[in-house]
Amino acid sequence: MEKINLKRLADELHLSTSTVSRALQDSYQIGADTKQRVLALAQKLNYVPNPHASSLGSRKSNTIAVVIPEVFDSYFAQAVNGIETVAQAHGYHILIYLTHESEQQERAILRAFQGGRVDGVLMSVSAETTSTEHIAALQAQGVPVAFFDRAADGIETARVTTNDLESSCLATRHLVECGCSHIALLSIARQLSIERQRIRGYQNALAESGQLFREDYVVECTHDPEENYLAIRQLLEAHPEIDGLLVTVELLTVSAYQACHDLGRRIPADVKVVSFSNSRSAAILNPALTTIRQPAFETGKAIATLLLKALKNRHKNLGTDSVVLPSTLIVRASTATDIK
Amino acid sequence: MEKINLKRLADELHLSTSTVSRALQDSYQIGADTKQRVLALAQKLNYVPNPHASSLGSRKSNTIAVVIPEVFDSYFAQAVNGIETVAQAHGYHILIYLTHESEQQERAILRAFQGGRVDGVLMSVSAETTSTEHIAALQAQGVPVAFFDRAADGIETARVTTNDLESSCLATRHLVECGCSHIALLSIARQLSIERQRIRGYQNALAESGQLFREDYVVECTHDPEENYLAIRQLLEAHPEIDGLLVTVELLTVSAYQACHDLGRRIPADVKVVSFSNSRSAAILNPALTTIRQPAFETGKAIATLLLKALKNRHKNLGTDSVVLPSTLIVRASTATDIK
Repeated sequence: MEKINLKRLADELHLSTSTVSRALQDSYQIGADTKQRVLALAQKLNYVPNPHASSLGSRKSNTIAVVIPEVFDSYFAQAVNGIETVAQAHGYHILIYLTHESEQQERAILRAFQGGRVDGVLMSVSAETTSTEHIAALQAQGVPVAFFDRAADGIETARVTTNDLESSCLATRHLVECGCSHIALLSIARQLSIERQRIRGYQNALAESGQLFREDYVVECTHDPEENYLAIRQLLEAHPEIDGLLVTVELLTVSAYQACHDLGRRIPADVKVVSFSNSRSAAILNPALTTIRQPAFETGKAIATLLLKALKNRHKNLGTDSVVLPSTLIVRASTATDIK
Repeated sequence: MEKINLKRLADELHLSTSTVSRALQDSYQIGADTKQRVLALAQKLNYVPNPHASSLGSRKSNTIAVVIPEVFDSYFAQAVNGIETVAQAHGYHILIYLTHESEQQERAILRAFQGGRVDGVLMSVSAETTSTEHIAALQAQGVPVAFFDRAADGIETARVTTNDLESSCLATRHLVECGCSHIALLSIARQLSIERQRIRGYQNALAESGQLFREDYVVECTHDPEENYLAIRQLLEAHPEIDGLLVTVELLTVSAYQACHDLGRRIPADVKVVSFSNSRSAAILNPALTTIRQPAFETGKAIATLLLKALKNRHKNLGTDSVVLPSTLIVRASTATDIK
């Protein structure tokens, strides 16, 4: 297939390549008639601009990077779909990068962006991330960064999150109302702001109901299912009095159910479970899982809209808009009281 | 933060920018001493090449596009992780594009690649895709395309798939052995080669056991959970004799379970279910789901390895290597016979 480039268009139209290039970029320097001739021929010959060449001219890649810990999670999958819906409507590509919860990988990814590969970055920080210089360095290079779900403290920019403190409080209160008096919490990374919020919500609800917060009831898991299974099993063996579990991360659900099952701790008769989860499977688990459902798709749409608005207005600085979208408690059989 | 570019490096070293550029590209025209001086300073000053500028020179983007129908599926999530593991090890970025099962979106995505945005494409075709001109057009422009899981017929290139026919036959045979005599099949797109293989495997197993293949036992679903729920419910209402379900796509599992539940058809006592699924939740569903587990992570690794090998050897043509990795039947409670 013949390669259609600017030169080929220019030759056919008896124009210079720079005139053709400006016409295609809708430059004010080119008359309407010429523009129309150029566009008509470009369309007829199926001309596709070379993205690298046009990026050098306009300093735009029309690409947004989405940096997330994992796609293997309903929340992030739905958030990416929301981001993509908005990006596609504005003619932007999205580049999905996975950190696999590693700060080192997150640093390497952000470093690569300093070359100008992307116009902006939407990110949810890794569970390991404790410092923020790599994010600040990217901002200093003029690449706008915005956070969704997991924000980094100390970085001034726009963020879209959910009401983690309130929904965790709501979930814990629900367990208390269902009769639980020894509620444990499963976390993945206590340094993450969202996890700190969830732990605080849990503490608040315990305090409200006069229950003690116990450090040994908080288990910090990893992203390895086998390790998590063992850690949860150990918790339940060490503390047979535990009658409620607040699972703050979807991926821990399977391990929690399996540990309860293998120890003969019936859900919900012996242990009641609430999990932060956006999985459609929640309704068909054994037993059906009571969940805190986060507004994942809406969060993706909202953060992409904020970034694209800034890019359109050529703002490198996104401001410090902070949007909070509420999560929902969906009660199912894993916290039922009539089965006891 | 000061921007470190070629000019800055050249000034400091008293060299021309073209010498610095060639040294960084390890050109044979530059002596070893000079190369070492350039690299040392580049490292010291934390120089990051402008990817657009260097792409124009080397005609390489170091980016691979992964075009898939959906990330909201354990299979694709695991396959992407496999691809990424290999790409990262070779210094390639991956760009994930979602077609949402739309042929039109798939065409638009591939069209954008014609400009040279990516070095190669790994794809799993959309459920709607019936023609292949857009794929052939991209190959004709010199962009290598390889398939994983869902291949397009009539396109000569490398592909990594699983033994869909055999595993579907195995699953159906398992249902027959568990006493099912009226087995229905839930599909999403009968024109997809993998779906045709799965239907053929199902037909073969039925023929083996002397059961009739019935066209009205094959339901073609969509990617809308509500529509699928209604279609499956309608099937079960119209055919109360159905005692086995072969679910060929993971996303249909939740709808199938819900339809059975709402109609009071107990799994496995009244209806036994086997599903193609890579979800870790399978083990904790109510009841635990018998699955055909596909080698998703391994498939991603294998197809990325094939593409990167070709790119390294500057082969635009990937050959017609066809790798088949086997799937596994994992028997769980949804096909149990001792509960009847």
